[in-house]
Amino acid sequence: MAKLDIDGIIRAIRSVIPDQKEPVALHAPCLGGNEWVYLKDCLDSTWVSYLGQYVDKFEAMLADFTGAKKAVALVNGTAALHSALKLVGVNPGDEVFVPVLTFIATANAVTYCGAMTHFVDSEERTLGLDPYKLKDYLKTIGQVNADGCMNKFTKRRIKAVIPMHVFGHPVDLDPLMEVCKEYKIEMIEDAAESLGSYYKGKHTGNWGKLSILSFNGNKTITTGGGGAIITNDENLAKMAKHLTSTAKIPHRWEYRHDYIGFNYRLPSINAALGCAQMEQLPKFLESKRILADRYHQAFKEMEGVRFFKEPSFARSNYWLNTLLLDDAFSERRDELLKKTNDIGIMTRPAWTLINELSMYKDCQAMDLSCAESLAGRLINIPSSAFLVKTNA
Amino acid sequence: MAKLDIDGIIRAIRSVIPDQKEPVALHAPCLGGNEWVYLKDCLDSTWVSYLGQYVDKFEAMLADFTGAKKAVALVNGTAALHSALKLVGVNPGDEVFVPVLTFIATANAVTYCGAMTHFVDSEERTLGLDPYKLKDYLKTIGQVNADGCMNKFTKRRIKAVIPMHVFGHPVDLDPLMEVCKEYKIEMIEDAAESLGSYYKGKHTGNWGKLSILSFNGNKTITTGGGGAIITNDENLAKMAKHLTSTAKIPHRWEYRHDYIGFNYRLPSINAALGCAQMEQLPKFLESKRILADRYHQAFKEMEGVRFFKEPSFARSNYWLNTLLLDDAFSERRDELLKKTNDIGIMTRPAWTLINELSMYKDCQAMDLSCAESLAGRLINIPSSAFLVKTNA
Repeated sequence: MAKLDIDGIIRAIRSVIPDQKEPVALHAPCLGGNEWVYLKDCLDSTWVSYLGQYVDKFEAMLADFTGAKKAVALVNGTAALHSALKLVGVNPGDEVFVPVLTFIATANAVTYCGAMTHFVDSEERTLGLDPYKLKDYLKTIGQVNADGCMNKFTKRRIKAVIPMHVFGHPVDLDPLMEVCKEYKIEMIEDAAESLGSYYKGKHTGNWGKLSILSFNGNKTITTGGGGAIITNDENLAKMAKHLTSTAKIPHRWEYRHDYIGFNYRLPSINAALGCAQMEQLPKFLESKRILADRYHQAFKEMEGVRFFKEPSFARSNYWLNTLLLDDAFSERRDELLKKTNDIGIMTRPAWTLINELSMYKDCQAMDLSCAESLAGRLINIPSSAFLVKTNA
Repeated sequence: MAKLDIDGIIRAIRSVIPDQKEPVALHAPCLGGNEWVYLKDCLDSTWVSYLGQYVDKFEAMLADFTGAKKAVALVNGTAALHSALKLVGVNPGDEVFVPVLTFIATANAVTYCGAMTHFVDSEERTLGLDPYKLKDYLKTIGQVNADGCMNKFTKRRIKAVIPMHVFGHPVDLDPLMEVCKEYKIEMIEDAAESLGSYYKGKHTGNWGKLSILSFNGNKTITTGGGGAIITNDENLAKMAKHLTSTAKIPHRWEYRHDYIGFNYRLPSINAALGCAQMEQLPKFLESKRILADRYHQAFKEMEGVRFFKEPSFARSNYWLNTLLLDDAFSERRDELLKKTNDIGIMTRPAWTLINELSMYKDCQAMDLSCAESLAGRLINIPSSAFLVKTNA
């Protein structure tokens, strides 16, 4: 029978990051490029707020890198999700499928729209939403009519689904697209964690009608705080820009608005930081893949635990590297968390499953057994790009 | 009979700002202090996101300057208003009194809560909400019961009122406080424009249960984009911080949340900018008052127009300097706007009254005749602090 050697796990982590002085963060930014130059330029121009070149430049760099036609830079990923849901027409009383294993923002954005979260299970292959299980589930609960997909039991419309690419690993998007087409459900990709992750050779975020990114301080690139909508629909992109800029009608002096808009624009100084970070993104991704590979090697022969590798159809950014304990050892997860954090190697478990939080405990949900199992066994380990030096 | 001499108005503006190369902005930032030093420090520490010293420092400076016990730095003024309304308990279906002459954010924040805006008239003495007219109006529509103030006609609860200090001039707060006490209505001050403005010797923002500030690029100080809640209630301040930081329960590794929170935190790099700006605020205010005085002198003898002076009980920051045309000349407002903007002197009218926008046209409203008159006659003229040089 397998054993779990917690000291062995710690030695394996240390063997991959030998030169780090502790504490070692889970994910800290690298600010060694043109951050300084662009911020100074921004200050010198006095265009620190919403005007000036950096927002446009950052949006162009995001579109270029992801291959999406348009990007709209926003104040954070949560704001981007909220706007995206509004833009695909999620209305009060609608239901939206949300993976139960995700950061709280995915669910909160649905709540902000007055809509109801409906929780979906994950699959162990991707850590993300299970499209096959969702398809089976819809056979029981879904019915398509002129308004879209109706939940036969709650009588509410199921308007959208938000696959979230957990820790940077892409959800299996093709079968999910098929489900969405069959049941007339809009897809919004929550690619907050997957900048630099590809599904079947194409960057994540290109399957959803709208998709969102995040540039929080712990992400692969950071703008301090920030996010974006990306989309291949130019009209939706225009509308996203308008709606998130207080829906003000352009005029030389008049203040007139034509929608209940949001104040979700990204300031220039944050976009300036983003431009410098985007220039370094290929280098960050290279380092992060080398780091993931080293972890993979270090854990290869270990009993009771495995290093999570990208799904076969994906090239992942390995945003947060992940260990999965064997089922038998889930009860020792907290011991591992405590020991590593105590010695200054930052680690964390998955998010508490959202349906276990009091605000969401009464929401609709399918069987969630895979997510429940993953949440009990999963641990993230230090993943900063600077943990590996490259010549790039 | 009085005449209106538009070329004379332009000459008067130019006489106050003789050395400016056109175009002259309405309000542009001054970034001549420690902005650079603090941003560099922020980058060097890599704490560009939500951790690090600058958010705490900025909040302490705001509390110190305004005399409020606590400040919570947020991503913008709109986010601050939305959070403040939630924190005083504005629920879906409630009504909230909003001045009809304000920036759209004041009304949108109410809508975000699922509550209904109820529009209130302004008074010419302050440009802000008229507390005496509101008191009279409540005699007709208001009825106090155990739940608070009920609107006799709509049967909805009137939960709150949001006095907004227009262009930095304080609303007459004492009589408004009396109305609020009598009718059990919560007050939230929208002090987005009034950092540095005092009512009867005390900084605006100290009357509301919670109040909000804005540090948008066009404000007296800027953080790129930013805002804050200020309050004298330490428990509400704690809750404001928690609710706007995704309501995550502090824990070394666990991700667990206890409310439907918001992601409204101000990033460190924006707070670093704010610290540098706060250091210069007294100097900005001194310059702005000198500028206002010069405008006052320049327009003293002119027919058909007057320069708006602070109310007798107030010391204003003169955020945006304001001209008021005589009633008879409101039809010439657009001519003045066009001529000034054409020659590169930026001017603007008041906001379109919110009840004239399609999204808000069916809302409850009292007689709005004063606001309607003001909106037709009001013009803002260039007001940046750097238009005056001081030795401070």
